[in-house]
Amino acid sequence: MSSSKSSISYTWVSDLSRQGTLDLFSRASQIKKKLKAGERIKSLKGRQIALLFNEPSTRTKLSFQMAAHRLGAQCLIIDDFTTSSMSKGETFLDTLWTLHSLGPDLMVVRCGNEELYENWVSQIDLPVINGGWGAKSHPTQALLDVFTLLEQFKTLDGLKVVFVGDIDHSRVAASSIKLLQIFGAEVRVCAPSGFCEKRPKSVPVLETLKEAITWCDVYFGLRVQLERHEGAAEKSKTFEQFQKNFSLDQQGLQALGKKAVILHPGPINWGVEFQDCVEKDSRLLVRRQVENGIYVRAALMESFLEKR
Amino acid sequence: MSSSKSSISYTWVSDLSRQGTLDLFSRASQIKKKLKAGERIKSLKGRQIALLFNEPSTRTKLSFQMAAHRLGAQCLIIDDFTTSSMSKGETFLDTLWTLHSLGPDLMVVRCGNEELYENWVSQIDLPVINGGWGAKSHPTQALLDVFTLLEQFKTLDGLKVVFVGDIDHSRVAASSIKLLQIFGAEVRVCAPSGFCEKRPKSVPVLETLKEAITWCDVYFGLRVQLERHEGAAEKSKTFEQFQKNFSLDQQGLQALGKKAVILHPGPINWGVEFQDCVEKDSRLLVRRQVENGIYVRAALMESFLEKR
Amino acid sequence: MSSSKSSISYTWVSDLSRQGTLDLFSRASQIKKKLKAGERIKSLKGRQIALLFNEPSTRTKLSFQMAAHRLGAQCLIIDDFTTSSMSKGETFLDTLWTLHSLGPDLMVVRCGNEELYENWVSQIDLPVINGGWGAKSHPTQALLDVFTLLEQFKTLDGLKVVFVGDIDHSRVAASSIKLLQIFGAEVRVCAPSGFCEKRPKSVPVLETLKEAITWCDVYFGLRVQLERHEGAAEKSKTFEQFQKNFSLDQQGLQALGKKAVILHPGPINWGVEFQDCVEKDSRLLVRRQVENGIYVRAALMESFLEKR
Repeated sequence: MSSSKSSISYTWVSDLSRQGTLDLFSRASQIKKKLKAGERIKSLKGRQIALLFNEPSTRTKLSFQMAAHRLGAQCLIIDDFTTSSMSKGETFLDTLWTLHSLGPDLMVVRCGNEELYENWVSQIDLPVINGGWGAKSHPTQALLDVFTLLEQFKTLDGLKVVFVGDIDHSRVAASSIKLLQIFGAEVRVCAPSGFCEKRPKSVPVLETLKEAITWCDVYFGLRVQLERHEGAAEKSKTFEQFQKNFSLDQQGLQALGKKAVILHPGPINWGVEFQDCVEKDSRLLVRRQVENGIYVRAALMESFLEKR
Repeated sequence: MSSSKSSISYTWVSDLSRQGTLDLFSRASQIKKKLKAGERIKSLKGRQIALLFNEPSTRTKLSFQMAAHRLGAQCLIIDDFTTSSMSKGETFLDTLWTLHSLGPDLMVVRCGNEELYENWVSQIDLPVINGGWGAKSHPTQALLDVFTLLEQFKTLDGLKVVFVGDIDHSRVAASSIKLLQIFGAEVRVCAPSGFCEKRPKSVPVLETLKEAITWCDVYFGLRVQLERHEGAAEKSKTFEQFQKNFSLDQQGLQALGKKAVILHPGPINWGVEFQDCVEKDSRLLVRRQVENGIYVRAALMESFLEKR
Repeated sequence: MSSSKSSISYTWVSDLSRQGTLDLFSRASQIKKKLKAGERIKSLKGRQIALLFNEPSTRTKLSFQMAAHRLGAQCLIIDDFTTSSMSKGETFLDTLWTLHSLGPDLMVVRCGNEELYENWVSQIDLPVINGGWGAKSHPTQALLDVFTLLEQFKTLDGLKVVFVGDIDHSRVAASSIKLLQIFGAEVRVCAPSGFCEKRPKSVPVLETLKEAITWCDVYFGLRVQLERHEGAAEKSKTFEQFQKNFSLDQQGLQALGKKAVILHPGPINWGVEFQDCVEKDSRLLVRRQVENGIYVRAALMESFLEKR
């Protein structure tokens, strides 16, 4: 796994090769097996992982923290910008440099300002993992999604995956679509026009939810990122259209293949992307996605720090 | 120690038997002895404890964290709902499930929504400790109170305990009264009428503070939970009456038995439940309560995780 | 290293002797050497460090946390006064006592109320490190500054150090000036009149920035602590004067000696104390200051806990 910026940073899904990813997953599976058996792993004993999140996050931050702890590492977390020096007017860039100077073994950064972050990563000699980046990328989410699907389907070659929801504002879609294509999946999207204007050209649109449901092996629901939309009027119009025509409900569940699965990066807006009935459906794999996030993130951290 | 919901959850004081509690205290005393001697305990080495508090807390959260650390475990904490996914509109129930999927060894939950929590606990197979629950229950507070009183009085049979303050809105009173009665203590309450309408029938009211003070072996002050009252007008009226007639002051301290003790779950509203003079009184055991909280919570976590 | 209050507290720079400080630095250098070599240190294994910060902080809090972790200790942190019991009206003094009762091995406290803190420290028998105290003192910052300068210059005898900026409102200046003088440095200040009214008499004023730059071996920039000033009108006037006449810019960098160095406690107000060009100047040692903060704080904690 190598980066165009630095041999030790992991910033982009484009840094990933199919083989490099499979090697990582092999490590993740080993970690999963050991932890499931109640075995203690000490591969990162004494290591310090710095987590810097300048946007709200529960699952990603806690997932990295748990992954680090499960390998024996400790964490330093900055996520509360009201009690930190950021509230004294320190720039995010200065905070990055300060954290770097504290000498962690690895950093995980969630950052809204993409150019700033990219430029900074290119200057440092420390492993940095992209913890989710504005609307552009979220590579460890892509890893956990593909890992979960490989567990379920053994191979992704020819697997039909439809993303339903706010494609344009989803860093999950941006990253997961790329990695799914690297693994040979056939990806389509399904959303009202205001939600999929900027999609990659390689990804066709399915016009109706019915079409999407009957076509797919994997129904990938996306969070409607209302907070990323501009223009309240337009927002509510697209939102209403989405909620009326693109929400997975009881009828949709019945039309979905018995061996199909339902993914979602979380948090779910219940009643928007999914109706409440989806929660009890055994094809919904969100909890397994969360669980697998621990193993792939642990594997990623271990692979970076083993080399050093 | 068994629960009606699950064999490994500890949710209610009603789950406690006298003998089960004594076994727990025996373990807590061992832990206290070792830690006082500067001994390191590693019984929870490598274990991950998740702490989820959706209401403000300092002492309970830190007490569980310290207790976990003292046995060698690490913690994951969610308590800031402005930087977490809760601020993206994630429901508390989804947060509980997400945390569960991260695979902690044990969870501690403080939750205001009692039905939601009870229903959730019944579905999972992980040890969950109730970290304080709306106005209904706070079992680990009951444990530390009874542990502290047993240290002081050896037996609680016939011990006269009066709770003074906002009985109706106190989860501490609800839980501690039950456990004190299991241990044979004679419990009464003393408060203005707006503060003790919903008390258990087994608990008589003492009309005046003077009566309470001269009767009791244990004066248990409760925090006036103004934030839990409805109706500002009524609130201030009952509050004024309380502050005038039910506050422990210099005169009260003089009338209190020399071998009596004063407890309070904290945080104390100085000038409301207690006048400032109480702080220096050697019969006030609040700091010992806080200290003992570490040992009983450590014992509880150890007893749950040892079995697995 | 002894304190006038307690033999184990470290509260004031005046507690420091030259020899005691050199002993501490010798320990810090050992720690630096080991950590740079990737060696794990376990001297504080199993120890619990409580960090209580009732004012915003990133670098100091994280620095203590990293220092503690690097020696094998764990931390308990209270810094969010919206989710803690402080939001229920608990006084800061009660929070100090509660934290003390939880039984940490050492406490680090940042506190705005100096009398309260000083009185409290005098009553307890636990090592407490002053983590920055209103406008009065910040001894561990002084230690890391002097450690960094000793690394650079071998001796401070006769070294010319000028502090430029808001001397009166800087706890860094207050502490670092004292320690620099103990080590034989010649200290001056340079600032508009509203910024250096309360300076020690032993410290002369240099009238112009040009004079300061050509005189000094060490240019110590200070954060303009606008939040500590009273009177908005006066504030903006002094501020404008400062920004116009006392900001380090390209011309200043050219006039500064080639072997001189530039320090700043951070966070820097870019465009106020320093113009952007300063960031790339190799004489700027802020990142090394941050790094060295880990070693001196680790050494301090280790020296306190070793004795017990």
